[in-house]
Amino acid sequence: MRMVDIIVNKREGLENTQAEIDFLINGYVKGDIPDYQISSWLMATFFQGMSDDEAFYLTKAMLYSGDVIDLSMIDGVKVDKHSTGGVGDKTTLVLGPLVASVGAKVAKLSGRGLGHTGGTLDKMESIEGMSIDIPEDRFIHQVNDINIAVAGQTKKLVPADKLLYALRDVTGTVPSKPLIASSIMSKKLASGADVICLDVKIGDGAFMKTLDDAKDLSEIMVAIGNSFGKKVTAFITDMDQPLGMTIGNRLEVKEAMETLAGHGPEDLETLCVNIASYMIYYAHKADSLEEAKQLAYDQLHNGQALAKFHEFVEAQGGTVPVLDKFITVDEIIPYKAKKAGYIKRIKALNIGLASMKLGGGRETKEDDIDPNVGIVLHQKVGDLVKVGDTVCDIYKNKRWSDDILELLDEAYEIVEEEIQTPDTIKTIIG
Amino acid sequence: MRMVDIIVNKREGLENTQAEIDFLINGYVKGDIPDYQISSWLMATFFQGMSDDEAFYLTKAMLYSGDVIDLSMIDGVKVDKHSTGGVGDKTTLVLGPLVASVGAKVAKLSGRGLGHTGGTLDKMESIEGMSIDIPEDRFIHQVNDINIAVAGQTKKLVPADKLLYALRDVTGTVPSKPLIASSIMSKKLASGADVICLDVKIGDGAFMKTLDDAKDLSEIMVAIGNSFGKKVTAFITDMDQPLGMTIGNRLEVKEAMETLAGHGPEDLETLCVNIASYMIYYAHKADSLEEAKQLAYDQLHNGQALAKFHEFVEAQGGTVPVLDKFITVDEIIPYKAKKAGYIKRIKALNIGLASMKLGGGRETKEDDIDPNVGIVLHQKVGDLVKVGDTVCDIYKNKRWSDDILELLDEAYEIVEEEIQTPDTIKTIIG
Repeated sequence: MRMVDIIVNKREGLENTQAEIDFLINGYVKGDIPDYQISSWLMATFFQGMSDDEAFYLTKAMLYSGDVIDLSMIDGVKVDKHSTGGVGDKTTLVLGPLVASVGAKVAKLSGRGLGHTGGTLDKMESIEGMSIDIPEDRFIHQVNDINIAVAGQTKKLVPADKLLYALRDVTGTVPSKPLIASSIMSKKLASGADVICLDVKIGDGAFMKTLDDAKDLSEIMVAIGNSFGKKVTAFITDMDQPLGMTIGNRLEVKEAMETLAGHGPEDLETLCVNIASYMIYYAHKADSLEEAKQLAYDQLHNGQALAKFHEFVEAQGGTVPVLDKFITVDEIIPYKAKKAGYIKRIKALNIGLASMKLGGGRETKEDDIDPNVGIVLHQKVGDLVKVGDTVCDIYKNKRWSDDILELLDEAYEIVEEEIQTPDTIKTIIG
Repeated sequence: MRMVDIIVNKREGLENTQAEIDFLINGYVKGDIPDYQISSWLMATFFQGMSDDEAFYLTKAMLYSGDVIDLSMIDGVKVDKHSTGGVGDKTTLVLGPLVASVGAKVAKLSGRGLGHTGGTLDKMESIEGMSIDIPEDRFIHQVNDINIAVAGQTKKLVPADKLLYALRDVTGTVPSKPLIASSIMSKKLASGADVICLDVKIGDGAFMKTLDDAKDLSEIMVAIGNSFGKKVTAFITDMDQPLGMTIGNRLEVKEAMETLAGHGPEDLETLCVNIASYMIYYAHKADSLEEAKQLAYDQLHNGQALAKFHEFVEAQGGTVPVLDKFITVDEIIPYKAKKAGYIKRIKALNIGLASMKLGGGRETKEDDIDPNVGIVLHQKVGDLVKVGDTVCDIYKNKRWSDDILELLDEAYEIVEEEIQTPDTIKTIIG
């Protein structure tokens, strides 16, 4: 078998066989196949796409390129959730304790990665003492004990994905749906979950710009998961504005805790209750989706979900924050509306970048994060504002850049005509 | 400027700017841009194609990536010719002396390359004493003196093309017309000719399989040449059977000499007279194409073209072969028709491979060539044969492989219905 023939087959629109895809992934991980052949195959794949079979073979080859976590020592149905990445996305911090509180098993491995805003791991580490480095045996013990553990991914998990992703990033081959789908699914499958919920964001701040693109991507991921015998559901959700009212690590932890206590923002609660309902139902903790949804809602309003969050934080060495002492900044700068009208859009990407420039996210791997800084929204899309109304607060410490105000100026689109509150969940696939 | 943005622009179907293409070629030659980014750009180019402007910019950037031969010391119009490569193609050995004999200046640099059969340089070197290593000053002096010199390309000529071609070969990006066109044209332009005739082969033994593909490629090359102010003409010619009757280095030299003496095979003479007519006319050695064609024909039949060949061979240190002592083989094996009927096809690729396996061409760069071996056809497409008629002779020395007979078996397609003799020249572009 020669790599150049595998490339030519893909270029000509033929399907790559399982043997070809195994040869490619194994050869690449071993260093037998050079980057320049892989990158030309990636570009051919961008143009020709992949059949469901090919996407399955690719995911499988990547999955078995490294460690696969053995969760067989955990009793019960393991549920997991993945988001394609959004601004203000603290869903995991709510969903995890929420579904764990009714007995579903949450054994979650998170990646760190770069981003405008911190990831779940950064948010957890903003809690004093909380650790994301847990040895495998303690991880499994913790899930059996309190139903939830969240840890950082080991480097041995899906090494093929790490190599491929780094190459795609510099060769213009990131936005290929089967490549995105197999990257996400290989990591989820390697993490060992039985039930996987995918939160596919669409809009300005997201990878997928349109509903059609998001549907295509979701269908590929659901098909891959089903081929592995997993129950996969994809939620296509709005990222034309940030999720919830806060952006920044501690600000988001605080909002997650408020949501777990039943007084979170409507969009975040809606999203969490809906995704939780699928996890709870497929983990056999309710007899129907409706019952599961009611249960999820109840757990947020009866203190059980928050109690589970406390257990979770303490199990991983953290001290549950006292919310009114949790966030310390030098200054809170109100940002005011320059125009009267209805908010039509709050560009998520701009808000994320503004938070990053305050120190809330990393531009390079080496950057330190300031967990206290960020942005707090006062209004959301559909709200009516007057000139001079504070539309958001800037939580600032030492770091500052004049771009921040420009980013906010560009983030807000305010119009005269009335604007409907957008649906948080656009559609559900799988 | 970032290479990844150049890739993404091409991937999205935007035109690359001249600055982008210069950045890419210069960066690649310097080693600043890695293979894996170039290969992904090559594949994106395979799918998106190139505008005439882009092909021009690419050719220009490659052309100036290395030495450009200065032929300004040569008086008169410099003519050159390039073939996309065929089996039995000894055209250069006929055309060069032919047009030089009427005063056009032939200053030709040939590449060696791999191939089923030897290239022009191998054919020249099959003549005792003839050298293709000529220092630049002697090369120019020889052209001024006798109107013709043919030398091997220096390694410094178009280094970008050497790098790109090697990468395309292993990344499945060879058959992209703008990439083929810019590769050919950058070398022709670097060699300094004013008038360029391109022989674009179509058929089984050629890169281009269909007339439409050959036309597309020809139009790109003509457009590139015109952008540089050169007169370029592309002849799309038949390669559904070998050209002429002989395949193998000395066998082809012998046939070229017979053609120069006015008794060559019809297809070879037709091709040479037609291409020569354009070279002669555009070199202002005749007042019309018709006159130029008559002149070319006359020079083949009045001894002038052959006399120029003698001068050419001797100027480069060779001894003009005595034809009946030129070829020495251990054995001439007649290969006989297994079926009666009209010859519909003589697969050029198979004949070329058979000759290579006899030792007439190189499988790897290190292989030695046996100049004496090869194949001599007795019939061509359209001819009627009986069972047991010798359709070709196998000129054999030490090397032998049983595949050779199989290759010949597969080469001949013989049918009952009458077959027309194919046109050697299908169309002319430019």
